[in-house]
Amino acid sequence: MKFTIKNSLFTAIVSELHKISSNKSLLPILSGIKIEARKDGVVLVGGNAELFIKKKFPLHINGETVVEVHEEGSVVVLSKHFVTLLKKLPDDIEISSDDMQSVLIKSGDIVTRLNGLRAADYPTLPEIKVLHSIEVNLTSLKEVIKQTIFAVSKSEEKPALTGVKMEFDNNKLICTATDSHRLSHREIQISYTEDSHSVIVPSKSLIELLQLKESSLATVHITIAKNMILFSTENTILYSVLIEGNYPNTQSLIPTDFATRITMNTKTLIAGIDRACVFSEEWKHNNVHLTIIDNTILKITTNSAGIGAIEEQQRISMVEGNTDVNMTFDGRFLLDALKGIQEEQVTISFYGVMKPAVITPEIETSYVQLISPVRS
Amino acid sequence: MKFTIKNSLFTAIVSELHKISSNKSLLPILSGIKIEARKDGVVLVGGNAELFIKKKFPLHINGETVVEVHEEGSVVVLSKHFVTLLKKLPDDIEISSDDMQSVLIKSGDIVTRLNGLRAADYPTLPEIKVLHSIEVNLTSLKEVIKQTIFAVSKSEEKPALTGVKMEFDNNKLICTATDSHRLSHREIQISYTEDSHSVIVPSKSLIELLQLKESSLATVHITIAKNMILFSTENTILYSVLIEGNYPNTQSLIPTDFATRITMNTKTLIAGIDRACVFSEEWKHNNVHLTIIDNTILKITTNSAGIGAIEEQQRISMVEGNTDVNMTFDGRFLLDALKGIQEEQVTISFYGVMKPAVITPEIETSYVQLISPVRS
Repeated sequence: MKFTIKNSLFTAIVSELHKISSNKSLLPILSGIKIEARKDGVVLVGGNAELFIKKKFPLHINGETVVEVHEEGSVVVLSKHFVTLLKKLPDDIEISSDDMQSVLIKSGDIVTRLNGLRAADYPTLPEIKVLHSIEVNLTSLKEVIKQTIFAVSKSEEKPALTGVKMEFDNNKLICTATDSHRLSHREIQISYTEDSHSVIVPSKSLIELLQLKESSLATVHITIAKNMILFSTENTILYSVLIEGNYPNTQSLIPTDFATRITMNTKTLIAGIDRACVFSEEWKHNNVHLTIIDNTILKITTNSAGIGAIEEQQRISMVEGNTDVNMTFDGRFLLDALKGIQEEQVTISFYGVMKPAVITPEIETSYVQLISPVRS
Repeated sequence: MKFTIKNSLFTAIVSELHKISSNKSLLPILSGIKIEARKDGVVLVGGNAELFIKKKFPLHINGETVVEVHEEGSVVVLSKHFVTLLKKLPDDIEISSDDMQSVLIKSGDIVTRLNGLRAADYPTLPEIKVLHSIEVNLTSLKEVIKQTIFAVSKSEEKPALTGVKMEFDNNKLICTATDSHRLSHREIQISYTEDSHSVIVPSKSLIELLQLKESSLATVHITIAKNMILFSTENTILYSVLIEGNYPNTQSLIPTDFATRITMNTKTLIAGIDRACVFSEEWKHNNVHLTIIDNTILKITTNSAGIGAIEEQQRISMVEGNTDVNMTFDGRFLLDALKGIQEEQVTISFYGVMKPAVITPEIETSYVQLISPVRS
């Protein structure tokens, strides 16, 4: 194997793959990156037992030659030192390997040799038997994931809740995440007319999908197979396992018929809740009290016996229903939910004592955040 | 106590003091910052048992009013939550305290209360009995410290070696640091005609001195008292203890009569040694081999049995003496020493097998780095 490549491009991709390569696996080869030089470009694969990413460098990008393949072949390089070294090398590098898996990286008078491993020993990516295939704009997909992923459960007790449920139904993609204390729900329009279908995708895989550096106009093809989901763009494929098991029916959790509904300026409210979270590390639950006073003011307060108190008042833009609200929430949950809202105004609906509150953008109903109150 | 202040300025200083305030001390008050509002401005003090910094906000900076003192007084605020909170508040804040040491921080409709401590319980900064007083440009002083401080000993075994020796002698300031494997020595011209005098300053205090944000033209007054050194600029005083004990006579360690002397491009050499350090975490000593080949080339090599090897060749600009050099050094020591050199060319002198090497800027003799070789 022998090829020359622009180091700046190459290092960026190797760094991405290094982050997901497993260094705790029983299979040492998984802490490596597979490099394959082919007539039509160089292909890199890195991953761990649940997630693989395959990246292709075509010979030319926007008419500029970025790779020249002098000899086909493949090898596996342990990623840790490979990344560190690449970052310290000039832009033009030549990478080659011999029959002994010795990998030479040359740049001018700088000659580096790393011990490699046999490419044949690297796990073979599974053959895909496609069940469903969907096309989505990558930027929209990332946004939907960002708006829901924070609500997944951090506990492994109920494995299904550690992932995001992605439901493809009647020209809609519906993402849902919940840890049973809060729920995040987001829908977008897509072109999908096949049978309704849903999968649970591990949040770790979606975090990597969010990291993918691609053009904002890129289209991602979602391919669903048995136990597996693939997200493919022009030069990248992300393979992820699916979480097996049943996802709870969350639609029934979202209440109807609010007792009180208020509309506030989103940014101002985020800043206020953020300040109220200053003492959060002192508490298991970061208790933030919300009280409506004088029918027009939302009072946000926190108290920490030993340290002090924070109190601020914000004007409510609009209030509906009764104004008898005096509830306590986990401030970080409020903050996570509010940060997903891009609209200028946010609506919070209350349903009575000890019932969850629902946060949505004003008017918009395709984004719903449900938060249970804290028993205080 | 009551004053209004520009929060952006105030937060920057409180953050600086928070970093040095002690949260591990037996005296809880040392994890606080003392705030004193006086007719002529607001004074903040923070520190730990070995180091205090006192910062003054005058009423006006460059003609702009930054502080308005409404009522004199003082209080101590625990710095951790104070800093976090200030960062989340708008620019105009009012700070006040009452007889119960309750500290109110107000900004518009945002009202925050932190529990404070009695200012009278904060340690009183010592009265100074000046022994020597010297004026230096702050930027020059910082440079001298940066060029030496990395060589201090990280072990507490010989306390004197954990500090930088500062020697004031015959219009010169001479800084020296050594951990007995390497030595860093730097002299600059100053105006000082009193008796020769030297002190050992803890490296932790000098690290804080390097952090001081002041104009590059600022003058620092160095005041030496018994067991103490003060660095004062217009609005800041840094108080540090001195390290007692005798500093070794290092002048005799610097050898004369080199066997080989080479001159190289500084930046190229730094990049090469940096690459050679890629495997450094695999070794206790990061062994980098330097070999002269063909009288004109310096070969830099490292080997790590399990991982691979790095080798590169760099052209020597000038060589004097015999060219029989084949030595091994700790790569990180070489790197630290070279990074202090701002000149385009660097001179390395070798004195024979197992003798230290000396690194200096070309020609310049006021900056000397001595590095012992590694027994390989």
